[in-house]
Amino acid sequence: MSSKLKGKVIFFATNNINKFNEARRVLSRYKIAVGMLRVKTLEIQSESLEEIAKNSAIHAFQQCHLPIIVEDAGLFVEALKGFPGPYASYVYKTIGNEGLLKLMKEATNRRARFQSMVVYFSEELESPICFKGEVLGEITETVREGCSGFGFDPVFKPLKSEKTFAEMDIDEKNLYSHRAKAFHKFARWYKSLKI
Amino acid sequence: MSSKLKGKVIFFATNNINKFNEARRVLSRYKIAVGMLRVKTLEIQSESLEEIAKNSAIHAFQQCHLPIIVEDAGLFVEALKGFPGPYASYVYKTIGNEGLLKLMKEATNRRARFQSMVVYFSEELESPICFKGEVLGEITETVREGCSGFGFDPVFKPLKSEKTFAEMDIDEKNLYSHRAKAFHKFARWYKSLKI
Repeated sequence: MSSKLKGKVIFFATNNINKFNEARRVLSRYKIAVGMLRVKTLEIQSESLEEIAKNSAIHAFQQCHLPIIVEDAGLFVEALKGFPGPYASYVYKTIGNEGLLKLMKEATNRRARFQSMVVYFSEELESPICFKGEVLGEITETVREGCSGFGFDPVFKPLKSEKTFAEMDIDEKNLYSHRAKAFHKFARWYKSLKI
Repeated sequence: MSSKLKGKVIFFATNNINKFNEARRVLSRYKIAVGMLRVKTLEIQSESLEEIAKNSAIHAFQQCHLPIIVEDAGLFVEALKGFPGPYASYVYKTIGNEGLLKLMKEATNRRARFQSMVVYFSEELESPICFKGEVLGEITETVREGCSGFGFDPVFKPLKSEKTFAEMDIDEKNLYSHRAKAFHKFARWYKSLKI
């Protein structure tokens, strides 16, 4: 790969094709080319998405020396003291949406927020740069599957919508989503650089 | 600290006084002196206790250059596909015992196991050494607090006992516990060394 090309493509280190598709859809509006890089990133245990994502970005960069993005997301449910938080993907794999709804059975406060932390790192930078996105919403009473989405999307409804994330297509989800907000912030910063 | 003394004391890197007391009780039977070392250890996200504990041990050793033990434990509930697994302490802090019982409300299979991974590392070793302990049991129908215990101890009953871990004192818990088994294995190995 030529160094010229290297400067024009950034790499999103993820194994989650849904996350990649959501990110690519946002970045394409800014004409930013992004590749999906399947690399094992180190994730630390922490309640801070920023700490997790920064560490992952440094670790991923050390492996490939390419301009790299990592993203870490979490679902924070108020009535459950923030659970599942940054461990959303492990919790989804084990107890799933049904488990989350069981925990919420008698909860009157159903407020929750999805957070996304996008971190960019490249050889020009001294330290990784973070962009945070957040969406407020609530945990639905039932699992509401739809045409897309993954993870806890079928039980999360943004405040200003009647649909769960799973009932929206990517473009509609990106109007609300934590991930899209973080990627928009990143993209505006990236386009402001003189490269 | 003299190098002679260094060779005779080992350090358990933990912030959990309950864990430390359980370990000390076992090690004292082998006349192994152990100190509690409050050091921030790096924990990675992984479903393998061994991988988490090995990484922590290396990280802790790099900070102090003392003979070091770290221990990582997990609670694996069959009906919940292994949840909460290695994230037991985060899950306990958020949804707690009541949350776990909600998830198990209609479960007929209540089998669970506690696992402990004790890892030792010192400057004489090329790589950390692991000692695994396990106890089979079941998740009780109610929270059964007692004189001691911490975390999920009030809802875990070893197969061969009528009491939960929380209803036992340390000596009785150590007859069954995953942690005691792993520390016994470590102690026998440690005593077999020519030091």
